[in-house]
Amino acid sequence: MELTKPGTKFILLFCFAIVFGAAKVKAQDPYAAYRQGWLKKAEDLKPKLTETVKQPISVVTVEKDAAAFQGWKAVNAGGIDQLYNSAFSKKNSGIIADFGEHMTGYFNFTIKGRRGDMDAPLRLKFTFGEVPSEIATPFDPYPGTLSRAWLQDEIVTVTVAPSTITIPRRLACRYVKIELLGSSPYFEFGISNIEFKATTSVTTTPAALSAGTSQMIKDIDRVGLTTLKECMQTVYEDGPKRDRRLWIGDLYLESLANLYSFKNDDLTKRCFYLLAGLSAEDGVLISNVFEAPEPHAQKGNRLLDYCFLYNVALKEYVAATGDKQVGNDLWPVAKKQLDMIRKYAGDDGMMDYVKAGKEWWVFFDWKNDLDKQAVLQGLSVYALNQTYALAKLLGKESEVADIPALAKKLKDAAHKNLYDKKSGFFVSGVDKQVSYGAQAWMTLSGVASKAEAQRALKGLTGLATAVHPGAPYMFHYYEAALIESGLKTEAKEALTTYWGGMIKKGADTFWEVYDPNDEFKSPYNFYPVNSYCHAWSCTPVYFIRKYPEIFQQ
Amino acid sequence: MELTKPGTKFILLFCFAIVFGAAKVKAQDPYAAYRQGWLKKAEDLKPKLTETVKQPISVVTVEKDAAAFQGWKAVNAGGIDQLYNSAFSKKNSGIIADFGEHMTGYFNFTIKGRRGDMDAPLRLKFTFGEVPSEIATPFDPYPGTLSRAWLQDEIVTVTVAPSTITIPRRLACRYVKIELLGSSPYFEFGISNIEFKATTSVTTTPAALSAGTSQMIKDIDRVGLTTLKECMQTVYEDGPKRDRRLWIGDLYLESLANLYSFKNDDLTKRCFYLLAGLSAEDGVLISNVFEAPEPHAQKGNRLLDYCFLYNVALKEYVAATGDKQVGNDLWPVAKKQLDMIRKYAGDDGMMDYVKAGKEWWVFFDWKNDLDKQAVLQGLSVYALNQTYALAKLLGKESEVADIPALAKKLKDAAHKNLYDKKSGFFVSGVDKQVSYGAQAWMTLSGVASKAEAQRALKGLTGLATAVHPGAPYMFHYYEAALIESGLKTEAKEALTTYWGGMIKKGADTFWEVYDPNDEFKSPYNFYPVNSYCHAWSCTPVYFIRKYPEIFQQ
Repeated sequence: MELTKPGTKFILLFCFAIVFGAAKVKAQDPYAAYRQGWLKKAEDLKPKLTETVKQPISVVTVEKDAAAFQGWKAVNAGGIDQLYNSAFSKKNSGIIADFGEHMTGYFNFTIKGRRGDMDAPLRLKFTFGEVPSEIATPFDPYPGTLSRAWLQDEIVTVTVAPSTITIPRRLACRYVKIELLGSSPYFEFGISNIEFKATTSVTTTPAALSAGTSQMIKDIDRVGLTTLKECMQTVYEDGPKRDRRLWIGDLYLESLANLYSFKNDDLTKRCFYLLAGLSAEDGVLISNVFEAPEPHAQKGNRLLDYCFLYNVALKEYVAATGDKQVGNDLWPVAKKQLDMIRKYAGDDGMMDYVKAGKEWWVFFDWKNDLDKQAVLQGLSVYALNQTYALAKLLGKESEVADIPALAKKLKDAAHKNLYDKKSGFFVSGVDKQVSYGAQAWMTLSGVASKAEAQRALKGLTGLATAVHPGAPYMFHYYEAALIESGLKTEAKEALTTYWGGMIKKGADTFWEVYDPNDEFKSPYNFYPVNSYCHAWSCTPVYFIRKYPEIFQQ
Repeated sequence: MELTKPGTKFILLFCFAIVFGAAKVKAQDPYAAYRQGWLKKAEDLKPKLTETVKQPISVVTVEKDAAAFQGWKAVNAGGIDQLYNSAFSKKNSGIIADFGEHMTGYFNFTIKGRRGDMDAPLRLKFTFGEVPSEIATPFDPYPGTLSRAWLQDEIVTVTVAPSTITIPRRLACRYVKIELLGSSPYFEFGISNIEFKATTSVTTTPAALSAGTSQMIKDIDRVGLTTLKECMQTVYEDGPKRDRRLWIGDLYLESLANLYSFKNDDLTKRCFYLLAGLSAEDGVLISNVFEAPEPHAQKGNRLLDYCFLYNVALKEYVAATGDKQVGNDLWPVAKKQLDMIRKYAGDDGMMDYVKAGKEWWVFFDWKNDLDKQAVLQGLSVYALNQTYALAKLLGKESEVADIPALAKKLKDAAHKNLYDKKSGFFVSGVDKQVSYGAQAWMTLSGVASKAEAQRALKGLTGLATAVHPGAPYMFHYYEAALIESGLKTEAKEALTTYWGGMIKKGADTFWEVYDPNDEFKSPYNFYPVNSYCHAWSCTPVYFIRKYPEIFQQ
């Protein structure tokens, strides 16, 4: 159609503008019709937390020990009575109460006069530590890149005695150091009734492991369960000390572990709905969301791999529980995330990881030098196949009819472009980097044949230049790949060595960051601000319980 | 009676023991029958505080200035909007809000996000100052002898935005410094709605001074009224920052000032009953009492001169108000305090101040080198005479019939032993010390004739070695003595110079300690822990309003 009259042209342009505008508004929020319903469901599923009051089991000193984790160990120094039965003064300032276990919740204490009258306020400092090093390491001057406020030291002014005081912020700790910063010379007082109101949304006790399970596997399972339990609050948190919120990547691993342990399906559902309800107006999931003061997403935080993992997590949940309602409710979201794969998949079947890396946060691991080409390619194939499996569970294959072909195209391209037959490794990027991550994702995605996967995975340990996992999160995918490829012995060995390494170092809960060669590693430039109870490290629970033939004998 | 039979002797001793025991129990608590009633009356008289919400009037910087009080001055740096309308960051950390007046009460503020999401807690430090130097002087390492916790700096962790947070402890300040100790680099926030909920039990506005009153006297009166108002909470406090409680010495001066200004008789009555109800079981008044968690006295704190001043305060109150019920109710207490005069009064009519000083805290002034002989002798005479005047008001002279003679005996002995005719001064102690305090108390007690008093008081200014008042508390008695002796010009001059000196230094309220020659003087080894709104410094209100012929023309 040719437009000649300016007037007509103008009118037509105007009509186009209206149509385009309307289309644009619609495109801006593909979930407009569902969003409030999802948030309502999330709210209805919000768990009532179980509260358990915990008492310290002893007093400890934190002492230097080169062999201990991060160079500090807690040494039993007697019963808590020595604190309760004596005056608190400069003499015992710095005393450390040990609750004997990791807890998440609220701390309170009682101040009582012992001699004289309280003629001045008290100034007390409480330092809460998940691990001994947090108690021993000065926090200031603070060199970290995250907020100094994550560190759990609180200064409290007490104006009346007796009084029982609750520290307002929620805390996560095992150890509490108490220091006296100010008091009257005319007033002798004592600290007593130190309590921690521990919270979790866990209400069940998982089955015991098989009788023949080794002690180390039992220990790993126990600590994994504790880690998961501590992170299961009103959402799956990433860590109860930090960042205390729902991230898709952590949700994925927690929901897997939950399926084989606490079976709190409602919490998983709540998190799926919450993330969907708080997704961006263009349909993209936001990597993490907050609950307070009202549910909201960290809008600017778009993390490409996490979008894909939402689909994987949803599929695993629906497959394991048969809960098709959640699957059907959230299918529009899962379908939408695939657009990002379509967008970055080139005609050659390779994901444009450079472009994606410029436009998104592509995470995969706390490892700056990890090349993202292979891992993104592998996850894309995996997400396509898992999403299609979800479609099949829901009878919605027709809505994503292009997926099988696209998945195959990406898979074939990956094999063609990334597999180095000579070395037997999958390589990544312009420097042809060999990493644990690349071998893991090429295995999980099925790009590698079983034989190729076994060769690649087994070859890693002999390759000094292979890029290791930076955190337990990536180690999960490596472990999953070992199992997927049938390397049962290696899988058990890897799990026992890696998570068992934390056990040997005295972990009560598994850590956000664990590099056996560098205990001080921190993505935030200050290891005390690391989280030492971190959701993405709990997955031995999943492996041990899903594969008893590997781990429980 | 002679006791011969052992059996009888034993029985009699046993009977004695019972009688003595019963007598002793009775002697232990002469007010047993009244105590609960007094405490009940005190509770019934507890005022409901008036709350007024205050806003900062500007932002200030605190700058070095050798001419300013303690070397620091607050300089206006614009409207509070510059805080409210900008992001709070390291850039404006340390900003100081100025409320333009001294306030006592509770502080709150609001945190709101401006850009990004709050993905980490905030750590904020608030420092509250009555005077600029408190804002500028580092508190640590703390060299003071009182609790470090009196200093008003609070560290707050904020975990959710928006949120409005109230600092739990009650504060007293004009200035608030706000510092950022920790925040997320991904979250821009603002501080707004800084408010102070100011409390007082004052509900009236005193009459204006005469039109002809000088501006300086008006200013002194205004600042005195503010000082008194700030200290009038649910008791007459000594200072709203520190020590925040009822002391008899402060009560005396506050109740005098109140009689001529706010006329809150109920508060005065409440304090009399509270002190009586919380007196020791041997009938001695305790120097100070606390209200929380329930009313109680600082039992170990027996202060001899304050016991005597209770009687004086009670007499002044009854005389001024005609409220004989309070006088009759509390007469047993007043009568009992005289026992301590009888105890230490020697046959020669001189108080055994050495023995008293060993057995009691004999205060009179924050002045270590003040010899206490003359002041104690003078106050004893004064207390005897004032208590007898109270007895007369109540028609109870017969109960203290020995007092006039005892008072005369002490008075005569004082004149004989302490008056140095040659120099015209009253001297004190083995070193025959000449002090402002001695001349003041010899005048107020009537030991000095009018001519002697005038000579002594006038002579002080020319005597370099005379021991000066250490604090406004003793200056009150010096001022009262000038008036008592008829030295009107000198009285006006002294008041204008001393309290006016604080005015010239920018006082919003009168200070606990003021030595024109040493602005850094502190009885507690650290001047920021001094109270800068202190009850015992408010008495110009009393002088100016009681003696208009001296001050209001």
